[in-house]
Amino acid sequence: MQVYADNAATTKISKAAMDAVTECMKNYYGNPSSLYTAGQTAKQKLEETREEIAAAINANPREIIFTSSGSESNNQALVSAAVSGINKGKRHIISSAFEHHSILHMLSKLEKYGFEITLLPVHENGIVRTNELEAAIRQDTCLVTIMSANNEIGTIQPIKEIGAICRKRGVTFHTDAVQAVGHIPLNVKEQNIDMLSASGHKFHGPKGVGFLYANKGIPLQNLIEGGAQERGKRAGTENLPGIMGMAVALKEAVADMDKNNAHMRYIRDYISKGLSEIPHSILNGDAEKRLPGNINFSFEGIDSESVLILLDRMGISASSGSACTSGALDVSHVISAIGRSHNLARGSLRLSIGEDITKEEADYIISSVKEIVIHLRSVSLI
Amino acid sequence: MQVYADNAATTKISKAAMDAVTECMKNYYGNPSSLYTAGQTAKQKLEETREEIAAAINANPREIIFTSSGSESNNQALVSAAVSGINKGKRHIISSAFEHHSILHMLSKLEKYGFEITLLPVHENGIVRTNELEAAIRQDTCLVTIMSANNEIGTIQPIKEIGAICRKRGVTFHTDAVQAVGHIPLNVKEQNIDMLSASGHKFHGPKGVGFLYANKGIPLQNLIEGGAQERGKRAGTENLPGIMGMAVALKEAVADMDKNNAHMRYIRDYISKGLSEIPHSILNGDAEKRLPGNINFSFEGIDSESVLILLDRMGISASSGSACTSGALDVSHVISAIGRSHNLARGSLRLSIGEDITKEEADYIISSVKEIVIHLRSVSLI
Repeated sequence: MQVYADNAATTKISKAAMDAVTECMKNYYGNPSSLYTAGQTAKQKLEETREEIAAAINANPREIIFTSSGSESNNQALVSAAVSGINKGKRHIISSAFEHHSILHMLSKLEKYGFEITLLPVHENGIVRTNELEAAIRQDTCLVTIMSANNEIGTIQPIKEIGAICRKRGVTFHTDAVQAVGHIPLNVKEQNIDMLSASGHKFHGPKGVGFLYANKGIPLQNLIEGGAQERGKRAGTENLPGIMGMAVALKEAVADMDKNNAHMRYIRDYISKGLSEIPHSILNGDAEKRLPGNINFSFEGIDSESVLILLDRMGISASSGSACTSGALDVSHVISAIGRSHNLARGSLRLSIGEDITKEEADYIISSVKEIVIHLRSVSLI
Repeated sequence: MQVYADNAATTKISKAAMDAVTECMKNYYGNPSSLYTAGQTAKQKLEETREEIAAAINANPREIIFTSSGSESNNQALVSAAVSGINKGKRHIISSAFEHHSILHMLSKLEKYGFEITLLPVHENGIVRTNELEAAIRQDTCLVTIMSANNEIGTIQPIKEIGAICRKRGVTFHTDAVQAVGHIPLNVKEQNIDMLSASGHKFHGPKGVGFLYANKGIPLQNLIEGGAQERGKRAGTENLPGIMGMAVALKEAVADMDKNNAHMRYIRDYISKGLSEIPHSILNGDAEKRLPGNINFSFEGIDSESVLILLDRMGISASSGSACTSGALDVSHVISAIGRSHNLARGSLRLSIGEDITKEEADYIISSVKEIVIHLRSVSLI
């Protein structure tokens, strides 16, 4: 049996999204910045697509710019807020201890430029506390950046409440929604979000394309300088096939969200229950307030890498954490941030299931993980 | 008749490149940073592709990083050289007056950070003079960045000689080769190039993907921070479909270059001869040392925009200059840089023909442009 259970790393592109990419490559190859018909047709498609993307998060089309990835969107959001902060003499940024590296590494960079960074604790349940956020806001705070849902343990943050606090205190609020867009409902107006990052390939869209929402009040800084594309805020010929594919995938994801999530939540909890029967195992992150597709367990005395290799031999694709760091031998900063010991952190396993997961596959995952953990523990005892 | 004559803005993706994109979307969706088989298969494809791209310019695969566009590559090259410059106390950069905006705008940004910029003149023939470059190099020069071929008038720069001078003087040499890669022979070792930028969609590859070559001695700075992809130099999940499509297109372009160029040069000169018969017309840029597909004329007393609109009605897609700035009403900085009067600069027409152009299409272009110029002049006389 083959089970792909690493949808948080990347998803397989949907048939409709792939068709949109292919159709665009064939028929809309004109440069959207050109005057002639082929260019203007491409331009029109680009703007229609922008409307679709905006509608999916209740934004204005003029508030969306297309980028090449979630990481690029995150970087641009932070640089933009930092420059606004400098202009106002405010150099304090609040984030959380378990953000994605495209946030944390950029924050380290900003620290070198004189910014002070407060990383909120995420506690054992993997959720930021709004009272702690409120207490951390200072006169010189220019930005709060908290992810919508964590990429490793899937915990969903109280975005609407965080947004409301930021709005009340006049602080810009950005959310890395790379794991959330297309997976849980998002509404930038209702949730008081000033900036939001997303990535196409996390919701069955194409790779190499993402978007950044920034509301009208936010002056964006360019990460990529050059031509006047994307209202002068992001240079480079527009990747229309990618953009159109992303929009199709997002429309599908939003339309099927309730149905998909009900099914995934059921299977998620079924797998969690099965894995919790393994002795000395523990679920990472809140059991309820987490993405419908995310299961993350730590197994004492086990090394993740061995689990992953053996799971792969059994046809199951899974991960120990973020694919972006899987080259590294360090334990996950996310699992450490929720207070797990080194021993537990090095034995973490993330299963991020897709919409099409079956109960049979869930059973296969449970029995395979059980078998592997028991086997590895017996080996390490010898 | 429909003639697409704006290949310098963007090209139509080739059948083989499109098939490679589609095949990859279907079959290699694994995240190349993941441990399991689907990820490792994607990783292997990524590295094979890197070898192919490297081979096309005689680089080492480890010297290639994949980006989302030529603009991004240019930006990253300049930022990297600037940081190296700062570290050595060198803050002088030499470039030319008619570079692409992804170079010029980044140079303006660096000026604000205390860099001094020398823009070499490009003279009436649109070619940088090596003796002027040599004279401009100072003790504190940290970078020379000169494009391989201009995007508006197609003039080819003496890259090998420029590279030799830079090497002799110990200055890093970057070339924006977005218009040159896949169109004219490039060999980074023979031509003494330290850094080179390229974009897939300029040689019948997909949009949204490019690459940056940087030789081993160049410490790259990240433009996009985050995961450890691309040896830690460019974060974001790898756009494998785009990368594989780009490599296929480049292989085709290099294989067919001699044959294609002989044909295009013949048609280019045929069109140039035809257009030069229009009274008060002038070819922009050197007649010989230019890209095989580039024709650029100025017509006195004519406004480019009107020419383009009428050409479009006749089925011909063309441009007045860079698509990246065609929203703007300013005259081309390139045509101004070669010393044309405002009157001539506002009447410039770029025709960038493709490999499949026929003599019949060339005749149609010539007669259409003639008709339009005569018509517009008669109207403006009234």
